Amino acid sequence: MTETLVDRRARLMGPNVPTFYQTPVHLVKGEGVWVWDAAGKRYLDCYNNVPHVGHCHPRVVKAICDQAGTLNTHTRYLHEGVLNYIERLTATFSHGISQAIMTCTGSEANDIALRMAQAATGKTGIIATDATYHGNTMAVSQLSTRKPPIGGRWPNVRLVPAPDSLNRPDPDGSIFAGHVAQAVRELDEAGFGCSGILLCPMFANEGLPTLARGWLDKTVAVIRAAGGIVIADEVQPGFGRAGSHFWGHDKLGFAPDVVVMGKPMANGHPVGAVATRPDVMAAFRNAFSYFNTFGGNPVSAAAALAVLDVIRDEGLQENAARVSAHVTARMAALRHPLLRDTRSNGLFFGAEFMLDDGEPATRFCANLVEGMVARGVLMNVIGAGRNILKIRPPLPFSVENADHLMDRLEETLRDTKVTA
Amino acid sequence: MTETLVDRRARLMGPNVPTFYQTPVHLVKGEGVWVWDAAGKRYLDCYNNVPHVGHCHPRVVKAICDQAGTLNTHTRYLHEGVLNYIERLTATFSHGISQAIMTCTGSEANDIALRMAQAATGKTGIIATDATYHGNTMAVSQLSTRKPPIGGRWPNVRLVPAPDSLNRPDPDGSIFAGHVAQAVRELDEAGFGCSGILLCPMFANEGLPTLARGWLDKTVAVIRAAGGIVIADEVQPGFGRAGSHFWGHDKLGFAPDVVVMGKPMANGHPVGAVATRPDVMAAFRNAFSYFNTFGGNPVSAAAALAVLDVIRDEGLQENAARVSAHVTARMAALRHPLLRDTRSNGLFFGAEFMLDDGEPATRFCANLVEGMVARGVLMNVIGAGRNILKIRPPLPFSVENADHLMDRLEETLRDTKVTA
Repeated sequence: MTETLVDRRARLMGPNVPTFYQTPVHLVKGEGVWVWDAAGKRYLDCYNNVPHVGHCHPRVVKAICDQAGTLNTHTRYLHEGVLNYIERLTATFSHGISQAIMTCTGSEANDIALRMAQAATGKTGIIATDATYHGNTMAVSQLSTRKPPIGGRWPNVRLVPAPDSLNRPDPDGSIFAGHVAQAVRELDEAGFGCSGILLCPMFANEGLPTLARGWLDKTVAVIRAAGGIVIADEVQPGFGRAGSHFWGHDKLGFAPDVVVMGKPMANGHPVGAVATRPDVMAAFRNAFSYFNTFGGNPVSAAAALAVLDVIRDEGLQENAARVSAHVTARMAALRHPLLRDTRSNGLFFGAEFMLDDGEPATRFCANLVEGMVARGVLMNVIGAGRNILKIRPPLPFSVENADHLMDRLEETLRDTKVTA
Repeated sequence: MTETLVDRRARLMGPNVPTFYQTPVHLVKGEGVWVWDAAGKRYLDCYNNVPHVGHCHPRVVKAICDQAGTLNTHTRYLHEGVLNYIERLTATFSHGISQAIMTCTGSEANDIALRMAQAATGKTGIIATDATYHGNTMAVSQLSTRKPPIGGRWPNVRLVPAPDSLNRPDPDGSIFAGHVAQAVRELDEAGFGCSGILLCPMFANEGLPTLARGWLDKTVAVIRAAGGIVIADEVQPGFGRAGSHFWGHDKLGFAPDVVVMGKPMANGHPVGAVATRPDVMAAFRNAFSYFNTFGGNPVSAAAALAVLDVIRDEGLQENAARVSAHVTARMAALRHPLLRDTRSNGLFFGAEFMLDDGEPATRFCANLVEGMVARGVLMNVIGAGRNILKIRPPLPFSVENADHLMDRLEETLRDTKVTA
């Protein structure tokens, strides 16, 4: 009877199951940008991109309930839901991207994207950065860097040094493109060839570096010259978060061949997708008979369509741009001896802290995060050194919410001791 | 305006997107064992195992709506939903299986199972049958046989001849075990070693062969002697369908190390899971930091728990056993010149047809299926030769439904021309 939820998790889910925070939060209710724990304490959600249009948005909930009570099958039968959704979704893309496959997770979508690259190019080498995460399947986890995959990394994978606008300046992206060119040469020499590169257009897990529009152009040229394709993982930047643009790749100004989507796509309902041009889609579809039982089912399509409706009807992309400007200004005014840089990209913010010896202030950032949670604000850290605050609220985040966040952050910065 | 749904699919989803039937059915509504198309025609669903407790079951729909309107986050926060579900789920297992990871699809669950085998054994070779399907990720599709994976099959995979109780009798499973032993030797010689075998305890895609309890014992002994683990893919047999038992492996009488679940688990909500013993879970969890954003979220857990509740409260496992006996008897009474065998395993039925020259009656079976669809009964085919009717209705299938199915099948058999 006295078994805690943490103990129950260990008993039922096994060891090493990740949680957030020293004392994991037990959430029981969500609404808009707010969540509540079992003791009734309210938290401002400055972390979760899954509840993209706000926790438990009534239009998304209604779409799910209505369709779940009417029909939920799969795409081996005809249904207008998946078609209406893909039509609306692909209308947001430029660059000839007009077709999509719906999946249940971003991991599944990236797993397909890797095979699209193989099918379209006839090659198997793949490039990503060395401080990233793209998903959890056996294949996709080869590209993730926090923990090496079981059995060691596949020889057809090359991980290039991640962009870091603060510590390794590369204003026009030529250094990054040089690393990518070297990776292409290595893949060619090893006989794999380069099927493509998989990148987040915000480099969010890498630490949200400040990159000028066009920064990736040289890299894209290297990949195209090698006959590879460019895959944009829009799980974090996409669906209006970038503010000025609906997609991160349009903000950075490059034309991907394949776009991968996940987390925010259906506000928590398990939906992902991979979109591409008809030539790449045909290469994949003709090489492999792909079917996903739950992918694009009527309920998933209804949930995802409701999210697009809400983003449009509530002006959430415009809100992201407006509130981004406000938070960016307030973050620029932050003062702290360890604070080295503040960064923003739409409704996504980073603040990097380093010790005087130039080492990442990992522990200090962890303590900051704990201090914020104690004050009822949920956030976390990113970057290879885990020394960059990760602030990524749901899109209905208001200027008032932003002031609440920044007031609490100023207090916490003042009250958190500097420890090595 | 005159673009058909089929044309729209090709435009938006690309070529080679699988559908059922010569004229794909456009479904708009479901309830219990019935679905309706856009023209109002009603069909008896004798195919779908996803709507396990019946299309749009009100208790499952209510569970989804209630939780979607309250909170939907992920397992980095504490929540009782995922724990309550895993506790209820693992209580149905014997053999020390007491922990689970929730995913969004059976493919994701099998993808984890393959890595559990690698982590628990330190080996990478894997064995499956040569007429199977276990999912759609890059890794899992290596084990599927309908279309070879892009880039060719990985060298650590061995596919052994599938059991076929009609055409290749193997009453005690020693022939199958011999094939598996040979595959183990090949994997050892190639340096991969044998991490395990992945099997459906009904061998459903293989054609639902009639196998005596204990049939797999020799194979399990071969795998254990090789230090490998046994993975039971319960996506089709599980959750009471087998009738006499809740799980297919308990019906066949073997002890798996890992159990994979998917399709029927949450009645269409995207949920899968992989369950195992604590030692195997620890090996996986300590080797790889696995997190699935949507897996085990509060809504998914609520949907899955409602399915377990309905199975218990409506006696659906017992219903499967009772109706199975009725259908089995009626199928045994079927007479047709091409009919070679009828088979059943709980609420899952097969009827195998062959031409006089011993070739599979593939086209005849396709025509039978079309004739049934025209009569308002949905079913399909299985087996390497696509010459075995696949009849796998939702669990609330009644004796009256069964008589409707069998009456239509008798008519269709009488009216379908035999063609080569």
